[in-house]
Amino acid sequence: MADWQEITGGVTAPRGYRATGIKAGLKPSGLPDLALILSDVEAIAAGVFTTSHVRAACVDYCRQRLQAKHGARAILCNAGQANAATGSQGWLDALESAMAVAQALNIPSESVLLASTGVIGQRMPMDKLKAAIPQLVAALSETGSDAAASAIITTDLVTKSIALETTIGDRPVRMGGIAKGSGMIHPNMATMLAFVTCDAAVSPHLWQEMLSRAADRSFNSITVDGDTSTNDSLIALANGQSRTPAIIEMGHEAEKLEAMLTAVCQHLAKAIARDGEGATCLIEVQVTGAHDEQAARQVAKTIAGSSLVKSAIFGRDPNWGRIAAAAGRASVPFEQENLRIQLGDFVMMENGQPLPFDRKAANEYLKNIAAESSLPKDAIATNMSNDLSVDRSTVRTQRVDNPVIISVSIGNGHGTGTAWGCDLSYDYVKINAEYTT
Amino acid sequence: MADWQEITGGVTAPRGYRATGIKAGLKPSGLPDLALILSDVEAIAAGVFTTSHVRAACVDYCRQRLQAKHGARAILCNAGQANAATGSQGWLDALESAMAVAQALNIPSESVLLASTGVIGQRMPMDKLKAAIPQLVAALSETGSDAAASAIITTDLVTKSIALETTIGDRPVRMGGIAKGSGMIHPNMATMLAFVTCDAAVSPHLWQEMLSRAADRSFNSITVDGDTSTNDSLIALANGQSRTPAIIEMGHEAEKLEAMLTAVCQHLAKAIARDGEGATCLIEVQVTGAHDEQAARQVAKTIAGSSLVKSAIFGRDPNWGRIAAAAGRASVPFEQENLRIQLGDFVMMENGQPLPFDRKAANEYLKNIAAESSLPKDAIATNMSNDLSVDRSTVRTQRVDNPVIISVSIGNGHGTGTAWGCDLSYDYVKINAEYTT
Repeated sequence: MADWQEITGGVTAPRGYRATGIKAGLKPSGLPDLALILSDVEAIAAGVFTTSHVRAACVDYCRQRLQAKHGARAILCNAGQANAATGSQGWLDALESAMAVAQALNIPSESVLLASTGVIGQRMPMDKLKAAIPQLVAALSETGSDAAASAIITTDLVTKSIALETTIGDRPVRMGGIAKGSGMIHPNMATMLAFVTCDAAVSPHLWQEMLSRAADRSFNSITVDGDTSTNDSLIALANGQSRTPAIIEMGHEAEKLEAMLTAVCQHLAKAIARDGEGATCLIEVQVTGAHDEQAARQVAKTIAGSSLVKSAIFGRDPNWGRIAAAAGRASVPFEQENLRIQLGDFVMMENGQPLPFDRKAANEYLKNIAAESSLPKDAIATNMSNDLSVDRSTVRTQRVDNPVIISVSIGNGHGTGTAWGCDLSYDYVKINAEYTT
Repeated sequence: MADWQEITGGVTAPRGYRATGIKAGLKPSGLPDLALILSDVEAIAAGVFTTSHVRAACVDYCRQRLQAKHGARAILCNAGQANAATGSQGWLDALESAMAVAQALNIPSESVLLASTGVIGQRMPMDKLKAAIPQLVAALSETGSDAAASAIITTDLVTKSIALETTIGDRPVRMGGIAKGSGMIHPNMATMLAFVTCDAAVSPHLWQEMLSRAADRSFNSITVDGDTSTNDSLIALANGQSRTPAIIEMGHEAEKLEAMLTAVCQHLAKAIARDGEGATCLIEVQVTGAHDEQAARQVAKTIAGSSLVKSAIFGRDPNWGRIAAAAGRASVPFEQENLRIQLGDFVMMENGQPLPFDRKAANEYLKNIAAESSLPKDAIATNMSNDLSVDRSTVRTQRVDNPVIISVSIGNGHGTGTAWGCDLSYDYVKINAEYTT
């Protein structure tokens, strides 16, 4: 059905991009912590950022840059310090790091975008960061996507990466993406970050529109712990190096490009949800019958984010009452007589009436999903060490397993929406509490 | 400062009320599970109910009753079955139970209000319920508040009760309250319930207004797991038996009454938050400097409800970055330059700039609060058995300990608001996941 195929190469799969990730000594662990993505030519740039009123300096910086011009050449990302809640000094640090990388690349500093992830309230070690920039620039490579993906993660169990190819005007157009995020695992560790590259030619306005819609259908539809971070950033570049006709308005080609952009974002978003701290499985909630897409997604997200639903799934308990309760409190009006709830293939409520179902079989369904999708124990053990010194040699690429499917219908409307989440396990609490001062 | 004193007697402290709680065999455990509160005369009745679109039959029943007339004589409450998501049969069961108790009391069935708590999707065993009603009515007593308080709890560790006395027109006016709730602990167990009795004479409209405001400042300001239930109900009766002058408009006497009502509700609300599943301490978040009270409360509630803040407090980690992040995502606009964060006596951020503080001392502050407020181990162990057959002989009355105090200022506005929550421990997940089908 999909109009594209998966390819390798991540953010360096599209033409005209290089990337890398190196060890700059920003993380106490000494693991890779500084990433750079570079487009050979000025690319159209769009961004979606955290809605929080407490924002990292890099977020304010990117918003200002993209307001002034919808273009960029480079994205610099550090891991280890969030540069959030760092006051006016944090703002100066952001400016200085952009200038330093611009100088080394011999491009205007306005063409550099920034992202940070790490401990809130901590400044970046500017000496180390600046000292590492020549090496960073020298390491840029057309096969550097994996290195970049590894350098942006913090306590993620796996790196997250994808690349897709389609055709526009009979010529191949490629898109790649990398992301990080698994909740705010480490004390003060923040952030979902995602960077998308594309070699299509597209108008800035349209590219931003497409990205905003794709974000709503992917990153804004996942929930791990409900904690929007200070640093959440999604940045997408389109550099036109595919030499395909410019897409300047909605239409068949634009829809094709947007569908691929949505697929890239959804893949990365699901990988983040699956890598939620302590999670043992991915949960997909499909809602139909709502007034519009937004209402459907709101119900889906409320169910996916319910601590009680998440705990029940962890316990492999086909506990449809909690799904009904979560749907009811989503602030989306509906008549309970219209409520329908299905878990996997098991219909548990229809027309607001509870139905008898094979509880044992439903329990087996949940158990089997869990068994299929469980991460290797050593990976979990590694993550449980809960600091930045985990051995990243064991880091795996992302897995987006068979999710547990919850289907809910709330009426006769045409609005449908999907959200993704993960179950809530002991390890979530362990990860988030065990580090004490 | 307070214009009242604490007295004993719970909901039977005010004049003209009787109450009781008995074992009707509705809970599998055989523990008390049916409660009745009766006013000797028709009382002014006000109610605040769940905002969920999936509501128990008893909630719809009470809303209809109170819309038709603002009066009631009796509140019947069962524990064991929520009578939510039970379809049209659930509605018939609600009507029938109201009629049965009305008949036994020889009052109109319109004067009976209903509340239920227990497993969602399960009908009440009507035969047992109806068979128990003669015994229930016979057991009514002017000292029956504790029996009622014990019969409405499910997996609460403690009963929750309070009574206060003030004077209006030189005559004593009394108010009592009982409540249940500790999150939706048991699979499908729902509900926060609170019943308040008062012997003041007050106009129906004013009483409802006061109750709505008091609910916002108490029950609507606590959060355990963010899961609004299908059955949440707060019902308040005022029967005029104090023979004090009728309060028909706002003014000094009305303010006094409302302050006492708010105090009763806050006491019960804090007791519920403290009894949150798996909680080891109460958290109080005080927000100042907001545009208005609602905005302040929204920020306070977002912080109190943040899984990351809750996990940090459980880990005794003075992790102010998470507090800043939670404040920022509360959908209340503010300038981060105005942010001030204090934990206990430790100021951690001022004017949006992080401050150095004694991390070890702050950690000690959290550890000491925890040590003071820890529940006895056996009570926790009892609760951990996670079914309705726990031995209620060990149930204690509520404790509202010294809370962990988080103070946040977001600007120069005059809006202040407080919210209460609890920390997030391993036991929350254990309680909510370990019951598997």
